[in-house]
This record gives sequence, structure tokens and C-alpha cells, in this order.
Amino acid sequence: MSVVLGDKEYFPSVGQIQFEGRDSDNPFAFKWYDAERIVAGKPMKDWLRFAGCYWHTFCGQGHDPFGPGPQRFEWNNPKDAKGRATAKMDAAFEFFTKMNLPYYCFHDTDLIDEEDSSVTEFGQKLDFITDYAKEKQDASGVKLLWGTANLFSNPRYMNGAGTNPHFPTLARAGAQLKLAIDATIKLNGENYVFWGGREGYISLLNTNMKQELDNFAQWLHMAKDYARKNGFEGYFFIEPKPMEPTKHQYDFDTATVSGFLNKYGLADDFKVNIEVNHATLASHTFQHELQVAADNNILGSIDANRGDYQNSWDTDQFPNNINETTEAMLVFLEAGGLQGGGVNFDAKTRRESTDMEDIFLGHIGGMDTFARSLIVADEILTKSKYKELRAQRYSTWEEGKGKEFTEGKLTLEELAEIGTAVGEPEQISGKQELFENIINQYI
Amino acid sequence: MSVVLGDKEYFPSVGQIQFEGRDSDNPFAFKWYDAERIVAGKPMKDWLRFAGCYWHTFCGQGHDPFGPGPQRFEWNNPKDAKGRATAKMDAAFEFFTKMNLPYYCFHDTDLIDEEDSSVTEFGQKLDFITDYAKEKQDASGVKLLWGTANLFSNPRYMNGAGTNPHFPTLARAGAQLKLAIDATIKLNGENYVFWGGREGYISLLNTNMKQELDNFAQWLHMAKDYARKNGFEGYFFIEPKPMEPTKHQYDFDTATVSGFLNKYGLADDFKVNIEVNHATLASHTFQHELQVAADNNILGSIDANRGDYQNSWDTDQFPNNINETTEAMLVFLEAGGLQGGGVNFDAKTRRESTDMEDIFLGHIGGMDTFARSLIVADEILTKSKYKELRAQRYSTWEEGKGKEFTEGKLTLEELAEIGTAVGEPEQISGKQELFENIINQYI
Amino acid sequence: MSVVLGDKEYFPSVGQIQFEGRDSDNPFAFKWYDAERIVAGKPMKDWLRFAGCYWHTFCGQGHDPFGPGPQRFEWNNPKDAKGRATAKMDAAFEFFTKMNLPYYCFHDTDLIDEEDSSVTEFGQKLDFITDYAKEKQDASGVKLLWGTANLFSNPRYMNGAGTNPHFPTLARAGAQLKLAIDATIKLNGENYVFWGGREGYISLLNTNMKQELDNFAQWLHMAKDYARKNGFEGYFFIEPKPMEPTKHQYDFDTATVSGFLNKYGLADDFKVNIEVNHATLASHTFQHELQVAADNNILGSIDANRGDYQNSWDTDQFPNNINETTEAMLVFLEAGGLQGGGVNFDAKTRRESTDMEDIFLGHIGGMDTFARSLIVADEILTKSKYKELRAQRYSTWEEGKGKEFTEGKLTLEELAEIGTAVGEPEQISGKQELFENIINQYI
Amino acid sequence: MSVVLGDKEYFPSVGQIQFEGRDSDNPFAFKWYDAERIVAGKPMKDWLRFAGCYWHTFCGQGHDPFGPGPQRFEWNNPKDAKGRATAKMDAAFEFFTKMNLPYYCFHDTDLIDEEDSSVTEFGQKLDFITDYAKEKQDASGVKLLWGTANLFSNPRYMNGAGTNPHFPTLARAGAQLKLAIDATIKLNGENYVFWGGREGYISLLNTNMKQELDNFAQWLHMAKDYARKNGFEGYFFIEPKPMEPTKHQYDFDTATVSGFLNKYGLADDFKVNIEVNHATLASHTFQHELQVAADNNILGSIDANRGDYQNSWDTDQFPNNINETTEAMLVFLEAGGLQGGGVNFDAKTRRESTDMEDIFLGHIGGMDTFARSLIVADEILTKSKYKELRAQRYSTWEEGKGKEFTEGKLTLEELAEIGTAVGEPEQISGKQELFENIINQYI
Repeated sequence: MSVVLGDKEYFPSVGQIQFEGRDSDNPFAFKWYDAERIVAGKPMKDWLRFAGCYWHTFCGQGHDPFGPGPQRFEWNNPKDAKGRATAKMDAAFEFFTKMNLPYYCFHDTDLIDEEDSSVTEFGQKLDFITDYAKEKQDASGVKLLWGTANLFSNPRYMNGAGTNPHFPTLARAGAQLKLAIDATIKLNGENYVFWGGREGYISLLNTNMKQELDNFAQWLHMAKDYARKNGFEGYFFIEPKPMEPTKHQYDFDTATVSGFLNKYGLADDFKVNIEVNHATLASHTFQHELQVAADNNILGSIDANRGDYQNSWDTDQFPNNINETTEAMLVFLEAGGLQGGGVNFDAKTRRESTDMEDIFLGHIGGMDTFARSLIVADEILTKSKYKELRAQRYSTWEEGKGKEFTEGKLTLEELAEIGTAVGEPEQISGKQELFENIINQYI
Repeated sequence: MSVVLGDKEYFPSVGQIQFEGRDSDNPFAFKWYDAERIVAGKPMKDWLRFAGCYWHTFCGQGHDPFGPGPQRFEWNNPKDAKGRATAKMDAAFEFFTKMNLPYYCFHDTDLIDEEDSSVTEFGQKLDFITDYAKEKQDASGVKLLWGTANLFSNPRYMNGAGTNPHFPTLARAGAQLKLAIDATIKLNGENYVFWGGREGYISLLNTNMKQELDNFAQWLHMAKDYARKNGFEGYFFIEPKPMEPTKHQYDFDTATVSGFLNKYGLADDFKVNIEVNHATLASHTFQHELQVAADNNILGSIDANRGDYQNSWDTDQFPNNINETTEAMLVFLEAGGLQGGGVNFDAKTRRESTDMEDIFLGHIGGMDTFARSLIVADEILTKSKYKELRAQRYSTWEEGKGKEFTEGKLTLEELAEIGTAVGEPEQISGKQELFENIINQYI
Repeated sequence: MSVVLGDKEYFPSVGQIQFEGRDSDNPFAFKWYDAERIVAGKPMKDWLRFAGCYWHTFCGQGHDPFGPGPQRFEWNNPKDAKGRATAKMDAAFEFFTKMNLPYYCFHDTDLIDEEDSSVTEFGQKLDFITDYAKEKQDASGVKLLWGTANLFSNPRYMNGAGTNPHFPTLARAGAQLKLAIDATIKLNGENYVFWGGREGYISLLNTNMKQELDNFAQWLHMAKDYARKNGFEGYFFIEPKPMEPTKHQYDFDTATVSGFLNKYGLADDFKVNIEVNHATLASHTFQHELQVAADNNILGSIDANRGDYQNSWDTDQFPNNINETTEAMLVFLEAGGLQGGGVNFDAKTRRESTDMEDIFLGHIGGMDTFARSLIVADEILTKSKYKELRAQRYSTWEEGKGKEFTEGKLTLEELAEIGTAVGEPEQISGKQELFENIINQYI
Repeated sequence: MSVVLGDKEYFPSVGQIQFEGRDSDNPFAFKWYDAERIVAGKPMKDWLRFAGCYWHTFCGQGHDPFGPGPQRFEWNNPKDAKGRATAKMDAAFEFFTKMNLPYYCFHDTDLIDEEDSSVTEFGQKLDFITDYAKEKQDASGVKLLWGTANLFSNPRYMNGAGTNPHFPTLARAGAQLKLAIDATIKLNGENYVFWGGREGYISLLNTNMKQELDNFAQWLHMAKDYARKNGFEGYFFIEPKPMEPTKHQYDFDTATVSGFLNKYGLADDFKVNIEVNHATLASHTFQHELQVAADNNILGSIDANRGDYQNSWDTDQFPNNINETTEAMLVFLEAGGLQGGGVNFDAKTRRESTDMEDIFLGHIGGMDTFARSLIVADEILTKSKYKELRAQRYSTWEEGKGKEFTEGKLTLEELAEIGTAVGEPEQISGKQELFENIINQYI
């Protein structure tokens, strides 16, 4: 399986990653992830559907607001855009293959430099590189989990794309959106994502929020109608984030997105792609966001990473907190997994991690963390008293007057009569410490 | 106007507050609030509809998690509950009257001690004190802006009331809810409020969120049906808060509440009561929450206070930040004010403010801050270029293809064609600094 | 070892906790903590020196700003203060003994109700209950890790104790301080703690910070001189906390405290007592605070708990995050453990955990988490490449010009010459992902 | 005074800013700033000593982590570094002059592109551009408030400069530091600044904090010794910031820096440069940081801006909150102003403010905000009861036993005797609402 697809090996020092044998002295060995191991009735790989992301891993070099990035990528050496794009793709597929990642994800401008191209020029560039991607996909078996358009980096989108106050700019964005949908369909992308990077406001003072949100709904309807007409059968994902780069991003969190989708009649086609540190940035836990999505039947996909636990910054670090991911996997498994999506590593090595091998180390740690959590969560659900304890808390709704309440059969007068007759209700401990101890006993 | 209604003066050192003359050396004089002054077409008092709140001002004595409260209230001296309740009400109406507050608000248990009464006993107590309240209202002209039930302080509600996992506890809460609605109707309360203090979860591990939210919708429907049947014509208000005392409160913010109301068919009868430091606790500005409510036609009422700007804690301090309230009043005025509600001072003097007069000082400062902001905002809207500048930003939606877009008449192909033809769209500055300077020039 | 010391068993449903056998189906069994197991050269119990705390466990009943506490304690039934105090102490020592906790900690007012006693009366009460405590200590072998005075709950201390703006109030606090030091010495307390609950300000506007800090230093010197004169040989601990209940607490964090101790000549006698969720409330990690203390030779003791990772609130939950405690134990072990102190569970069961057994469950989870982390950290330090990798990063300071730099032997001109000659220095990866993976491989 | 110094006018649409006449319809007129107006005994310009900053205003074009900057600067058009540098300097001095700014500040690499130059090459470039700066300063009368070295943007400094784990990198940084000190002295810079952008850690796991801090102290001593030897007589400023870009920055806040300076014997030569949104990022108010600095005699300079009040992000927006700056100016005036420094606008127009004139609007708003606050604060201090009220709170330390306490003349036994005799001390209200109302009455 150690196929290198392109002309050149970009990670020569990193051989095929060791998936078996569990050698704890080898930093390039997995300890927990085992693609074929059956967990809760199917192979781990089918639950997790891991994906590599193009932007952080092959484009981002560690720049931050205080300086350019220190990470040096050989695939950026060719002088022409097409040369760089194919070199980068060779590196990407070498990486996906060595890591045994079944999926990848991209923004249009990750694949090939936009360089202020006109719409027509950029369409031609995309045609070129998606032809090459098709070959690489076929040769390697790696599939496209989802595609998306980068409608936030180019300065022209500084005030948003689908929510831009200025129609000509929104139209320019529409032209790029169409190309990205075309590219996704061409590559058999299983889903299409909208992350509203600048779909929000910087200052409410100069903003007509209602106009922008109405426009945004139109924008999504147009995209969906176009894609469906062209044969796309997958889901569209909205990726919630509360803020950054904007002061307020319209897709604040899963509850907000769910309300928006219902209000504008989009709930049948759109699900959410939940990113861990977008959840924490919104003052939620990751598991909370998963639960809200599951309860509203819109749990589509996951962007795996972590933020900083002290300041909640969107640091996109690789996930490594086993308690956090285990609690998330409990929700994940009880929800029956994801609708259409997978676990995409929207994570980047730290700016100072400048060895090429660090990219591998980050992914190994992240995949192992999710894999271990999946195993632990399954054991908690099947071997411990976790589910029984929780069900017990809600048992009064299963019959009698409690059941009638849930069915809307009681008036407030009737309820008040019951409540009066009850006297002082029994005190029932929440037993949070017991629930938490169970988690740790299974980790 | 310095009527003292009960037997005793509780604030003898504080005479009638000076509303006119604007004496800057007198801490008991208003500088900006002038009830009859016409702003934007009607008297300030009709825009702001100020209300005093019972709980912070007459019940809370400054206790915090680290100790009991240092504030000493003479009206707590009587040994029996009814004696304390009438003494407190005398003090409250003395305060409302001296401050010229047209409205007040209460929780049922603010009016008279619950003391673990049975439902029947508590109903009798409420009857007693609401009889007295009726007299006081009639004599003073002070009206009830809204009533509510305290379904979070008594330990029986530790796991929620309308979202309690245990049916008997929810039924017990229902009995209390009915009494509070009855009391509100009896006192001609103009609105009824739901603040979901413990309607959320402490740990997701032991929680069935979907069950709880479905139950909560039932609960609200029952309350509404009961009140309507008994002649209540006002609005019901949901008061968003993201967390505290729970880890996650279901009425997280206005967008979440709006989605919930729509999902469960409650949007015709329910509006939101927006509290300043609940907004900031949810990482929003106050003005943002007002705007979301206005855009969804659910801007019902305001709980005026402020949190701590560094840690966002729910400190319920009196509002004093003139920039914050001015930006809020811009939204308020453009929305045409509130639907049914008013500006209720859900604010408390600091724990260390132990002079009785401090209660007056806090309200004077808060009322002046809102009054000044209302005046400034009106000037900005009528005299400055503020509205014109913002309208200009959105002018491309008023005609031509932009207008067609908003009407759903364009496909993505058509939009892309326009965008391709546009080439590089014009760059248009957001001019945030100019907007901000205008604000400060009018303060 | 299941001795019950007083007249009555308060936790009859909870027998002696199972320390051996590791029965994963028994919630009252430890999985990792084994007092006698040798880790890094000595028994776990000697590293960790676990202590139970009086306040959260036997006094606090779960009250919060939104209501009184739902937890019901039988030891509060006696009508008189002394009866309640002895009953509570029986319960406490029953708990310490069943849990095999070697230490406990208290505030003076935890032991017996203050009830606005005069200084003389409170001194007599303390005499009574410390006589009884002496008996209980002797009978059980449980020792006093530290004592302290509660100088923040009584309303008289609303503006601080050692930093109160008003001399008579500070003097009143001094009288209580003296009694608490006396009690600690009488019970062979190994250390004495200062937590500056209200030693800070609520508003800078009315505060003379310099005066308050100078006074505070005087206050500490007086306490130290008095205790030393009376034979106390242990350490004094300052417990950093950045805020809450005050807006700004003077002992903000360990770096601030270290600067204060040095400035005022207190560093020989005072160390810090680091509380986990005071660290996170100050935007630091727990391990950061430990490291700052270790580097300044003031790592005295630990208050074990956790806050909320999303809002950083001081929730005093039991520690359960294995990644967090493992990273902390790395610092702890490399520092050689604590100076004088131990690991005190300044943690409380959640308000809704109303079963008496929940107190046991919380401590079992917390002790197991620390024990497991100690074992894991020791393995990382002794078996993995962790230390070698870090030492390698700093190897250039061990010899040559790097060493000369550290010894102050280079001028800037000389350094600049070296830097000029270096050209572009080698790029060296920080390898954070590798460090993090090592941690998880050993958990 | 509308002198344009270089060959070309870069801001042709913006004429000389109107300082007098106070025309509220002219966005390019000042409303409050009047350089010569006497406040508290001297002209406003001598209190405030406003400075323009080179980096945000002439270098930064609005890039953020999600895309390159949209702001387009004509001075970047020349193909060669020297051409760009002189064009930029012409623009800068045109701006300073039109705005009547008496000072400016720079990093070495702001003046001229570093472009991975060798030390020698960069020294030559600096010589070139500082020759030109000298001319511009002489012609315009604008002076250099402070200079500094950018030791954080170049990837070679990814792990710090003065705290880099690797000696050769630290030496390379030392060579650049020497050049920046030389440049500052050459241009009669009044102060020299150290902002420790990457002087901290990203992960504690791979960090030897003690080594890094000891090295940092050496580094500062070397810089100081070198500058003093070469005739520099100004102050060195440390600029506190708690985090970002690092996870933990060593100069966390003013208290931390003060402790560090004392510990390492640097307090005579080093003061702090306090930046508003570094204060709020550290969970402090701006006024708190000023007070801590004043009390420790290290209040050197101010970097004026603001962060985001909801998430505390380092947004470097122009200051506009009149309540915040007024409370700060109270501390500022009572401290007697700044030691050596001034008010430097380390602020940037928002990314979307792409008109050249927006730079002017931002500065006008910020200068007016500070000027208005200075006037208001002076009135509060001289006309209101503010100072008297606060002094009253601390009056018990002025005589008798209170005074003896402050002089260290009491033992704890004596204090306890006084406290016992006091009985229950008088309760004294903190009167925060009154203090706050006074502020607003004078705004």
C-alpha cells in the first residue's frame, strides 16, 4: 500500500505508517486506529470516514497575524501555477495514501492558485487540476468527501459573498460558487460545504442584517437548485461558527443554523458540518453541538480539531483530549453516526512544527484519539450502566399522566391538579459524578 | 408627588427625586430623563416605559456564593410572612412613586415568602398580597409591566421546571405556574414572562435534551392556552440567557429562541425579553440581540443592566456605558420601540452599596443613561448622515438585477453570468470609523 | 479500617471504600489509587497527601445565586451550635476514615457556626470544637494539612479584611485571624492558608490600591511574626485567584503573588496554594501555574478541582480530565512534589447531586484521576523520550558561547558579532504534536 | 501648516484637518482635541503627546488569518526596497503633519523591507532610511517617541528572540536588536520598546520556562548596557501582553512585568508601555493596568486602541468608548501623566475600511476620544466630590492606631485587642453607583 502516485516522493523520510503491531516506541505507529476492526457492528473506518484537508495540510505554511509562515513546502517551488498545483496534488495523494485516509476535502483555491484570475481563467485552471485529481483519485481509491468554494480570502469578499451588501460582488461570488459546484460534481464529491467565513458583520452600525440574511437564503436555494439540476445527490453542509473573522457570523451555532434552515425551507437538503473549536468558540461543548444536530436530524459531518481551552481561540490544533472526544463519541454513536459526512481533519500542525514529518504525527495523534474514543464510547454504551441510568431519569414520561403530557392531552388546570396532589415531589440526584466516573473507568 | 402610600416611610432620607432643574451637584437629580419630553414624536416615558423590579431591589440583599448579603432592609423585620410582605410592598411603592416609575415587575415569590408552602397555602398567600397590590396600584397609578413565576430558587426545581426530567416535579411546577398567571391577570399585568433559570442542563451526560425541549414546548402551549382562556391579552416573553445557573440554558439567545418558537408554533404569542448582560454572556452585543429580535418581529421587552466587560459575568450592574446604550437605542428607535414591554431595571446595587439611598442612585444613573441615549440616538437618526450612509451600502438591491435576485428570479447560471461580466467589482469601504465617529459626535 | 468515630453513622449506605481488587462494576471501588504503591521512589500517598475539605463537603449544601442548596445534611439537625458542630465533625471523620484520607483542611467558621458571635464568644466556640477535633485526630490518625480563617463570608468583610479601607474593620478581622492561627497551631496544622476572597476591589473608582496592598503586606508580616513566636514551623500559603467575588483580586496568579512576596520580603515563609480552576480563571493552564511556582521555589500545595472549560467559571467540580492532570503531574514530579502541602479536594458535588453517596463518588473519581496521572507522568518521565527531547531543545546553553551568555559574560556587541557570523540559523521544529502524542500513548 | 514634505501627495483628498471651529458636519474636524488648550496646568498636547504608528498605518494592509489585506497603498508601488521605503516615509510624514501629530513610533522593519537580508545588508538599509528619516524629522518637527526591533515576524524567530531555546537564533536576534538601538539613538528616539511578541511559549511540554526567563533578563541587561554606553538617556519600555501569538507570553501583565523587573534588577531603567487591548486580553481593565504601573512607578507610555468587548480579541480598533477612556484618564492625571512616553495609536482601521481617508477618520475619532476624556477627568478631579469621597474611605489610616498599623508598629496581639474592643464595626457603603454617576454627569 505504499504507493507514491506522482513523479516524486515528497515525504521520503516517512514510510508507510504502521497500522498494526502497536509499537509504542515508534512515533509513526498507530496505537488504537485499526480500519477494519469492528465496533458497534461495522468497521471503524466506516464510522469515522477520516478525511485529510487540503488547506491546512498542503497550503497553509503557518502564517499568522504577526508574521508569514515558517513551514517550507517543496511543492511550492515550480514557477507556474499548474506546476505548483500538480506537485502539491502529488504530495497530497502521497500523504493520503501513506496515511490510508479514505477521503479528502478542498476549497477550490486550495487546488490551484487563484491569483486574481478572471472567472473564465479560473474555470480553466480548475478544469486542468480536476482532470489531474480525477486520475489521482482513480489510481489511489481516495475519494472526495466534500468540496467548497473559498469566498472569504480574496479581498473582494471582505464584506462577504452571499451576504455582501453590494450586488455586483455577490454576483462575482456566484460565478465562483458555480465553478466550485461543478468541480465537486465532476470529482464525485459526496457533499458540498458552505462555511460562511465573512458571511456576517464587522459592525452592526453599517449593516442591514435582515437584508443580508434574506439574500443568504436566496443564495443557498440557487446553489441547491443548480446542483440538483446537474445531478448532485449528496448533502449540502452549513458549517457553524460564531465569529472570526467577522464580529458576528450568521451561522453562529447549530441551533441558529437549524432555525435558519427551517425558516427558509432549506432543512431537507442542508445538514451541518460541526467543527470542534467552532463549538467551543460559541461557548458550547463539541458534544452539545453534535446533540443539537442529531436532535434536529441535521448531523452531517465533523471537522476534527481542538481550540485553546483557556481562551477558546480557533487554533485548529489536532484533537488530543480523550475525555472530550469520548463524550462526543457517545453522542455520535447514539445518533447512528453521520449523515453523508465523515471526520475531516480541519487541523494544522503548530506554526513551529516545521519538520515535514510533523504533519504525519499530528494526524496519527488525532486519528488515534478519535479511534480510541469510539472504542471507549461503544464499551460505555454496551457494557456499563450509562444508558440505563439515563433512561431511568426519564422513565416518568413513558406512561400514565406523564405520557399524556407529552401527547398534549393535559391542560394547565389538570397539570396543576396533579401537581397539587403530588405535594413535595421526591428529590432525585442528578448523579453527574457517577456518570463521569463511568467515562473514566472505560478510558 | 411625594406620596407615601403605606403606614411608614422606608426611605426617609430620600425625598422626591428632582426631575427638573438639572442640578449637577445634587446626586438625587436627573440630568437627562424628562418623562414628558418629546423624542421622535412621543414622550420619553412612552418610549422607555421604565419599570422597577421587585427581586433585586426589595428582596435581594447582596448575598453571593461567598457569603450572605450585607444589605439590611427594615421591611424584613416583621415576624410573619404577611407582615413582611405588606411592609415590603409599602417600601416598593414608596420607591416607585418617589422615582416616578410607571411600571413594576415581579416573580410570585418576590411578593410574599414561599417558605415551602403547599400549593394551596401559597395560593392563599398570593391572594392576600395581590389584594394589597391592587390597592397600591390603584392609589399610586403604578402598573404591572409583567409577572412571572420563580421556578428556579426552590430546591425542588434544581433540575428544571418545565424541562424537569421527572413528571411529578414538572406537575408541581405547573401548579405554581397557574397561580402566577392568575396573579398577573388579577393585577392587569400587561405581559407574562418565562425566564428559564434552570431550563437547561448541568451535564449532557445525564440529559435527554430532545425530550426536555419537546416537553418545554408543551408547557408553553398549556400556559398560553390557559391564560388566553382566562382573558389575558398581553404577550408572553421568553427571556434568553445562554447559561448560568445551568451549564447550558435552552433559551440560549434570541436566534435560538426564535428558531424554537417557529418550530413549535409559538411565534404568534411569544416575544423576547432581552437582558443586556444575557446578551454579552452569549458573546453578543446588546444591540445585536435587539436587532435579531426586531428582524424576527419578536422584540418585546428589555431588562436593563450591564455585565462585566472583562469576564462577561452576569453582574446585573446598573447600565452606565453611554456608547453601548446609544448603539442599542439606534436599533430600538428604528424598530419602533418595544412590543408590549418596557425597560425594566433588572439591576442591583453592588453588594457593598449598603446605604438605602444607593438604590435611588443606581436607578437615577440607569434611567439617565437610557434617556440620554434615546435623545442621542434620535439626533443621530434625524440629523446625521447615519441612515443615509447605511442605506447607500444596500442601494444595489433596490432595482435591476439586484432586485431580481432578492425576488428569487435569478438562477445560479444567470447570477454567474452577471458575475463573470462584472469583472473585478468595485471596492467599497465599510467606513466603520466614520459611523463610530458620528455616534461620539452626538453623545 | 472501617472505624466510625462518633456516636452515629452518617453515611450508613456507604461502607469502607474498596481500594484493592479494582472491581470495575463497583462504583465505590478505586481503579488506580493505591496508597502504598511505589511511584518514583515513594508511596503514592506520600506524593499526593490527599486531603478532604470541610467547607464544600460538610458545610456547603449547594446554594447558588439563584437559590438555596438542595443538599440535606442530618448533622445540621441539632438545635445548638455545639451540637451541630460535633455532629458535623463526626460525619467528617467518618468520611475521612472511610475514604482513607490522611489529611483535612478547614476555615475556622467551617468547624462551628460563627452566628455573628463576638470575638470572645467565637474564641470560646473554637476552643470547644478544636478540643473535640484533637480527639478525633488522635483516634483516627487523620491530620490537619492546613487551617485558615474565613474573612470573606460575614458581611462585615464585604470590602475585604487585610485590605479593608477601614481600620476598625481590619482590626476586627485581625482578632479573628489570631484565633484561627491559634486553632491551627493547637491542632498541629502543618500549614496556614491565606485566600484573599475579598482582598481586592469591586470598583477601581473608589479604591486606593497602593494603600490596600501596603496594608496587606503588613497584615501578612504580623500574622507570620505572631505564628512564629508561638511555635508554628510550617509554611504560609497564599492562594492565587484572579477575580470573584471581587472584580480584581490582588493575588491574581502565581506570578503576581511571587512579585508581591519578593517586593515585601515575605518569600522565605510564604508559598502558594494553587487551585486548578483559579488557574483557568486567570487564563492559565493548571500546569503553567505549577511551573511558575516551582521555578520560583514557592510550590506549596494544590487545591484540586476543575472549572468549566467553556466559560472558565469557578465551578469547583471534581477533577476528571486525564490529559489535564497528566500534564500537571509532569511538572509536579519534576519539581519533586510539593513544599509542605498536599492535594486538597477543594471540590464539591454538583448542586443536583443530592444523594449522600455522591460525596464519595466525587472523591473517588478525583483521587483516581490524580493517581492515574501520577503513574502515567512517572512513566512518561522514565520510559519515554519526553525529557530527552526537551533537554535537546536547550542544549546550546550548556557550553561555549551559549553558556557564556547565561553567565553574563557577553556584551551586546559580542552577541551581535556571533549573530552576524551565524547567518541564517538552523530551523528547529518545536515538535509539539510529538510531545502530545507521547502523553496520550502513556495514558 | 499643510506642508507636504516629499515629492508627492499621498492623501490628496484629505486637506489639513480642521482643529478649530468644531464643525459637527465635517467628518475631518476635531470636536474636542485642541493642542494648546490648557488642562490641569499644561497644554493638552503635552499631556497626551500623541504619536502615529508606522506598522498599522503604513505597513499593514488588513491581512488576517483568512486572507491577504484589501487595503491598497500607492507607496508600495516602487519596485525596489529603497524606493518603497522613501515613498512610504513621505506618506507617513504627510500624514503626521496633516494630523499635527508631534510624535511617531516604528519597528525597524516597518521603515524598510527586511526581505531576509543578512545582518550587514539590513544594517545598510537601515542607515539609508534613517538618514532620510532624519531629514523628514528636521523638516517637519515630528519627533521619534520610541523605536523597537521587530523580532517576531521573520520565521526565524518563531520560537522567540531573547527567549529562543537555541543560542544561535538568539544571537542572530541580538545582531538585529543592536541595529535597532543604533537607529533609535541616531534619530533621537526618546525611548526604546520591547514587545515580546513570541517571548513566551506555545506548549509548556517542550519548554524550559526558567531557562528562557533567565536568558530574557540577560538579554535586557545587555541591551540596556549597550544603549547607555552609547549615550541613550531615555527609558526602556516593556509592553505587557498575556498571550497571542504565543499561548503564554512572559510579559503577561503589568504586575508580572513589575515582579520580573524587580527580581532581575531592571526596575530603574525599564517602565511599561500599556496597550489598552492587551489589558483587556489579560482580563483587566485599561485603568487597572495604568494604576498598577503608577503604583510601582513604572507608568511609561500608552498604546491606544481597543479590543472587542465580547471576546477580548486583540482587534486594535481605534478607541471610542468614552466611559472607558475617562476612567483611564482619572488614573493618568492623578499619576501626573506618563514617564517619558506618550499616547501612541497602535490602532488600525478595520480591514474593510479601504478608503485612504479612513486612516484620518480613525485617528480623529481616537484623538478626540482621549482629548474629551482628559477634559472630563480633569473636571471630575477638580470640580466634583470624587477625590474627597475616595479619600474619606481611607481616612482611618491617617492617624491613631490606623497610622501605627501602616508604620508596622502593631503586633497581631495588639491588633486583635483593638478588633475585640471594636465590637461590630460600622458598615460603610462602597457607593459605587455614586462614583459612576459622577463620571457620567461630567461626560
